[in-house]
Formats: sequence, structure tokens, C-alpha cells
Amino acid sequence: MPSSQGLDERPPGERQDQPERDRRQEADEQEARFRAVRDRLEADEPDVVAALLADWHAGDVAHLLEQSDAEERERLVALLRPSFDAEILAYLPLDLRDEVVSLLNPKELAAAVAELDTDDAVDVIQDLDDGARQAILENLPAETRALVEEGLTFPESSAGRLMSREFVSVPQFWTVGRLLDYLRAAAGTDESALPEQFYDIFVVDPMHRVIGAVPLSRVMRSKRTVRLMDILTKDIHSFSATADQEEVARSFRRYGLVSAPVVDKAGRLIGVVTVDDVVDVIEEEAEEDMLRLGGVGEGDLYRAVLDTTKSRFSWLAVNLVTAIVASVVIGFFETTIAQVVALAVLMPIVASMGGNAGTQTLTVAVRALATRELSEANAARVIGKEMLVGTANGVLFAVLAGGIACLWFRDPLIGLVIGIAMIVNMMCAGLFGALIPFALHRMKIDPAVASSVFLTTVTDVVGFLAFLGLASLILL
Amino acid sequence: MPSSQGLDERPPGERQDQPERDRRQEADEQEARFRAVRDRLEADEPDVVAALLADWHAGDVAHLLEQSDAEERERLVALLRPSFDAEILAYLPLDLRDEVVSLLNPKELAAAVAELDTDDAVDVIQDLDDGARQAILENLPAETRALVEEGLTFPESSAGRLMSREFVSVPQFWTVGRLLDYLRAAAGTDESALPEQFYDIFVVDPMHRVIGAVPLSRVMRSKRTVRLMDILTKDIHSFSATADQEEVARSFRRYGLVSAPVVDKAGRLIGVVTVDDVVDVIEEEAEEDMLRLGGVGEGDLYRAVLDTTKSRFSWLAVNLVTAIVASVVIGFFETTIAQVVALAVLMPIVASMGGNAGTQTLTVAVRALATRELSEANAARVIGKEMLVGTANGVLFAVLAGGIACLWFRDPLIGLVIGIAMIVNMMCAGLFGALIPFALHRMKIDPAVASSVFLTTVTDVVGFLAFLGLASLILL
Repeated sequence: MPSSQGLDERPPGERQDQPERDRRQEADEQEARFRAVRDRLEADEPDVVAALLADWHAGDVAHLLEQSDAEERERLVALLRPSFDAEILAYLPLDLRDEVVSLLNPKELAAAVAELDTDDAVDVIQDLDDGARQAILENLPAETRALVEEGLTFPESSAGRLMSREFVSVPQFWTVGRLLDYLRAAAGTDESALPEQFYDIFVVDPMHRVIGAVPLSRVMRSKRTVRLMDILTKDIHSFSATADQEEVARSFRRYGLVSAPVVDKAGRLIGVVTVDDVVDVIEEEAEEDMLRLGGVGEGDLYRAVLDTTKSRFSWLAVNLVTAIVASVVIGFFETTIAQVVALAVLMPIVASMGGNAGTQTLTVAVRALATRELSEANAARVIGKEMLVGTANGVLFAVLAGGIACLWFRDPLIGLVIGIAMIVNMMCAGLFGALIPFALHRMKIDPAVASSVFLTTVTDVVGFLAFLGLASLILL
Repeated sequence: MPSSQGLDERPPGERQDQPERDRRQEADEQEARFRAVRDRLEADEPDVVAALLADWHAGDVAHLLEQSDAEERERLVALLRPSFDAEILAYLPLDLRDEVVSLLNPKELAAAVAELDTDDAVDVIQDLDDGARQAILENLPAETRALVEEGLTFPESSAGRLMSREFVSVPQFWTVGRLLDYLRAAAGTDESALPEQFYDIFVVDPMHRVIGAVPLSRVMRSKRTVRLMDILTKDIHSFSATADQEEVARSFRRYGLVSAPVVDKAGRLIGVVTVDDVVDVIEEEAEEDMLRLGGVGEGDLYRAVLDTTKSRFSWLAVNLVTAIVASVVIGFFETTIAQVVALAVLMPIVASMGGNAGTQTLTVAVRALATRELSEANAARVIGKEMLVGTANGVLFAVLAGGIACLWFRDPLIGLVIGIAMIVNMMCAGLFGALIPFALHRMKIDPAVASSVFLTTVTDVVGFLAFLGLASLILL
């Protein structure tokens, strides 16, 4: 296409210098749109705001609500109320969803939710408090209500909650031509019989058991006379409705799936999970692990100060117990410290280095357990390796910290004590940093939640014990 | 479908009790398959192993390689060599990829890579070391090589690296019928002209600029005479080739996209990003933040002990400096500690509680910055809130720790000192836990990498300074 080359003012080689500008430009454009809405809102021009928002994607509206404060949010929701798009709720973080729902009445909400595909409807409704959920359900059309209520019977975070009940399934003897005719006819008469978007045609036997799937792109490449039986993929990944959503997400990622059937115990097709829902799961699961490792139960960016304080209190209380245990250990050596105050100055170094080395190992192990890269098969190897890494770095930092302590307090014996304590503590940090999450995982306890308390206790206690214990043996 | 009801032996109400069993069963089946391969490998029956692996999905083979030790891996790759599927590489973590590549020769690799779509080929090649990359490129067919090399000119982690060069774009005046005829003809003659999977038809003008997109499911619902112009979505999300992959992933998630066009500066279509690649990006970006927060540069599960030791050393070295700074602060108060040894026993409690409270805030803030939930618009509010939360928990733990210290050492003044120090330190923890990541983000430094060093320094220094400083004022 030589005629259009002139339009690109810059040679291709220059392209790679521009990412930051592009990125910022895109972000700026969005910021500008957000600011425009906020300015109109402040200028008290509700009609203009409503007109601006009318064309927005539900995801953008949700993002605007996220960035607003509670008062702005209330005004925005009031403007959106007349024709509220329930998809906005699907894009909101859970804690904000409750807040926005409380600003709408059940009738409005039910009307909005009825417009959603069943997977999104279940997603929006499942996390509301009981009262709000019941009120919406009662106001839904009977058929939608039945599907949504059935969706809610499946366990939380299961494929059944994730799946949509709208899908395209056809008998095995159909041809491509017959399928196209069916879709065109269905679209002409009852649009709601088809999902808004679909990616695979599921081929079922007379008992409605899944035989295989044909991706749409393959259907479109095939002549009308081709039988679906001849182009279907038989080796597909299906899930039981009770399968855990993490398992579903892992399979989508491992096999590059775009949609997958959900079947009941008899293998009958009852729903379809699509990749857009899985993307949310992947993001949520990764976020959950990260927050839990950081000692935060769940995202609390939008919670009030009091709620946040409460939710973080329990983790800190556990940590207080840990810290006191460490203090008790120090208390054993009060007389030693009274004789050599330098020990009090240096002891946090040993504990801190152990804690950090342990956290490194812990983070890698928790992550690898979540992605199933770490399992029974390689646990012994990983634990052994981490202990070696801890010991190796322990030796390096023993030399460094020992040298520094020796120069600082002009006493080679103090250098020796901190050096040995460092090696012991960092070896333990590597060992327990890998062992604790793995042991918790085997006991079916989420390692992201509990690992770091145990680890900190180990590295503090071992750190203080080794350092102060050796000091009383060697220095006194 | 009443005739098939009898096949489900259990009433629907029982379904929700089964998730754990289902999950374990699926995992068990896979473990069994893996074990079968390993057993045959140990029994030295290469032909059986090769036959078993022949039917496996590339994702499963990759997973098997992950769980094997280096020696098993070498034997497995030797068996896979004759018809190596380069897609296996795409599913391997980066560090393992290099190892497996080193076991193959460039010709074999090039033959395998040539079978991939360009996005996967670029993905596989980009992270290899220069020698291996060059050797593969030289052995690729000229046309594939040109596309792959062009892909490599785009910046790392950009849409250009992520995109596939195979896509379906058609002129605006085409009808559904003409599109179907074209696809069927292309499939019949030159299969490679079409991507293996596609989800949207991109409609372009004569300059090859994107006008809009039609999802395949919409094409299939439409009669042959319908013009694409009349069913296309104009408001689509396109990316410049230099756009950052995080930006791309955010848009895919926010707008529920399955594929999106990549355009050059003139708006001409040059590639397509599909959701399977984005799923990987989302997982990688979340993992990256989590690992960085834990003080690990990148996943190192498969690295050798020495490499891992080296890569973790630098972070620990930074931490040693921080710990020494804290020790220097303690050193100021050597005489105070010599007089009241209880201070040495209690001082780690204040620092530890501050560190943990700060980490909670830090984790929430780093995550919210990554998802763009935290931005200039709400930064002041979030920082203020975190300071309040820190102060509130500070007061609660001041009472607890103060009470315990008072009882332990039978001295109400020690309780008072630790109480005040706790409030001061936890307030600082909340303030700096939110402020530091936000400031780094504004300075275009990744907050996940650097935040926790700064934070630990603050909470250690403030903790020791407040506690020991107050002690020398009040107790002496």
C-alpha cells in the first residue's frame, strides 16, 4: 500500500522512542474526559453531565465512580438512575458496589439487572447483602429470576457462579449451512435466545451431553455443506459447575481458551464460561494473594476509616503477639545486655535480615503454590534450594555485618557473634520461608494468609536467640 | 429434556457440597498422567513416553517440564526433539525457556517457531539471549523472519510485541456473504493467510485505516445481503504499537475485549492483540508487583542456587544499610539502655508494629496504583484516610502494649512511653505507607520495587527514636 506511506510522518525506526508519550497521552485523554464531567458536576449542570455520560462505556462510568468521593458518587448515581446500566455494577469493586446499590431502589435495580446476561446478573447479585439481593430477585422477571437463583445455588467462586446460561448448542448432525440458517432465524425472531457474544458452537448429543466445540472462525472458513461433526474439536476442556474458579482460570490460561462448557454430573451442557469473566478471576486471585501477604484481608480503598481500622486490627493483633514472643526471648538475656549494651544496638540487624530473606523465599513460594508451579513433585528440591540460598547469603552478610560490627565496636568477638547468628538465622529463613507455605498448603490453609506470621516469629526468635545466646557464651 | 434427568444420580441440591472433591479429582487426574510419564521415563522406556506425550496439549507438556528436575527435563526434551512444538516454549516461564532452548539446535527451533503465529513467535524469541535469538532468526523462512524482526523493533512490553500480524481485515463495502465467500476461499487455497483463531472482523477504508469491527457472532447472526458497514461497531478500542502492555491489559479488562486492533501513527491497521496474550500479561504484571514487594526481582523458582543467591543479594544489601541506620539511632541511646534494660526488650515491638501497619497500607496503595484505582484525583483523600487509620490503630495498640509493658515491668511510665511511641509510629506508618508509593509513582519509579525500603527505614527510625527518645525524657 505505497500510496498511504506518506501519512506516517516519522520513519518506523523512531517508533520505539514513543511509548511514554503514547501512554501518557491515552491517560491524559481519559483524565480530561473525567475532569470535564467533574467540572460540569461542580458547576451544577446535571443535564450536561447526563448527556456526557450517556455515551460512555459502563467500564468508564465505573472507573469515574471509583475515583469520585462519596458525595460526588451520590450525585452521579442520581443522574444515572433514570436508565441505570447494571453493567456498571459488574465493573465496580465489591465494596463500592454495595454503596451504589444502596443509592438505587430495588425496582430500578431489577429492571437494570434483567438486561444483563445471567453470568453478569449472578456476579452482581451474589455479593450484595441479603436484603438487597432478595429485593432485586423479587422484582426480576420469572424466567430470569429462576436462572439467577439457580446460579446462586452453586458454591461461591465456582464455575457455576461464573457461567452464563446463554449459549449456542446444536445437534451433531447439523451442517454449517443449517447452523447459519438457525442463527439468522433466531436473531430475526427472538434475539434474547442467543447470547450477545459467543465464541464457540457446542455440539451436543440427544442427551445434551457435550461432544465437542467448533470455534466460530472455523465455522466461517467452512462451506455450507460441511458437517459440524467433521470440523469439531473433541478434546475440549469442560468444567463441572462446582469446579473452583481458580482451577477454571488456570485451565483458560494454560490452554489459551476463549470459552469452555460447564456440565452437570451426567456431562450435560448447562452453561458456558467466557474469557472476560476469567480475566476478572485471574486479576482478583492475584490481587487477593498479594493483599493477604501484605496483611490486608481484602481491598479496602473505598471503606470508611472505622471499617478499615477494624479490618486491619486483627492482623496487627496477631503481630503484637509475635512481637511480644520475640521480646520475651530478649528478656532472657537482660543481664547480658546490661553488661554489653552494644548487643541491643546490633540485635535488630540480625532479626531484620532474617525477616527479609525469609520474605523473599516466602513470596516466591506462595506465588508458585498459587500457579501450581510448586507442588509435591518438586517441593523437596525447592525447600532444599531455598535453604542453600539462605545459607549462601547468610555467609556473605555474616562477613559484611561482622566486619562492620567489629569496626564499630572495636571488638572482633562481637563481629564473630553477629556473623554466626546471621548465618544461622538466614539459613532458617530460607528453610522456613519455603517450608511454612508448603505445609500450610498441604493442610488446606491458604499460605498467603498465615505464612508471614509464622515466618516472622521464626526469624525474630531465632535471630534474637542465636545472637544473644552466642553473645552470652562468647562475650561474657 | 426430561428423558435425561435420570442420568444425574444426585439431586441438584447436593451439588454445592462437592467442590473440594471435584477440584481434587481434576488435580489427581493430572497428577496421575504426570506420574505415568515419569514412571515410564524412570523405567527407561522412551518410546512409551514419546507416545504418551504425543497427544498432550503444549500447555500440559510445559507444565510437566516445569515440575521436572533438570535431568528429567533434558531427557524429556530429547524425546520431544524430533517434532518439537514451539508452543511449549510460549507456555514456559522465562527462565525455563532459556534452559529448554539450549537443549535444541537452531534449525530445529526455527522449524518449530515458523509454525507459530507471529505474536507467539515474537514472544518466544524476544527473551532469549542474543546468540540463540540470532541463530533462530537466520533459520526462519524469509517472510516469517521479516515479520518477527519487525515485531522485535517495538519496545519491550508494548502492544507491538504482543500483537499478531495475522488478522482478517476487509473493505467497508463488503457484505456478509462476500466475507463468508472470501474466508471459505482463503481457507481452501492458502490456509496460512488467515490466523488460526480470530474473533473480530476489522473493517478498513482504502488507506487501511480501521473504521470499526464486527464480532464473529454478529456476522453469523446476519443474512448474506447485510452490509458490514451496517453492523459494525465504530466505537472500538485500538492501540498504538508502542502502547504499554499494562495499558492494553487494563483496557481489555475494563471493556471486556476479546481482540483489539493495533494501529500505526496514521491509524492504519498493523496487527491484532487477542485476549489469550492479555491473560498472560495480567498474570505477569500482578505477579511482578507481588514479587517486587517481596523483595524479589523476578520469579527464580527454576534458577540455580548461585543465580538466585546473586539476584537476591542486592535487595538484602539495601536492607542491611537500612538496618544499620536503625542501629545507629539505637546507638544514640546506649546510655539510656544501659540504665533501663527493659527498653531493649520492648523496643522491637514498636518498630515491628509500625512496620506491619505500614506494610498493610503500602500493599493496598501499590495495588491501587497498578490498577489505577489510586490516582492524583483521590490521592489526598487516600493518604489522609491511611493516616487516620494508622492513628486509630495506634491508639488501640498503645493501650494494649502500654498495659502489657506496665504489668510486665511494673512501671506505668514504661507503659506510657511505649504507648505514645506506638501512636506516633503507627501514624507515620499510615502516612508514609501511602505517601511513599504515590511519590515514587509520580517520579515514574515503580513503587512496588522501592517503597518498602523507604518505609522500613521510616518505621524503624521513627519507632526507635520515639520510644528511646521519650524514654530518656520521661524515665531518666
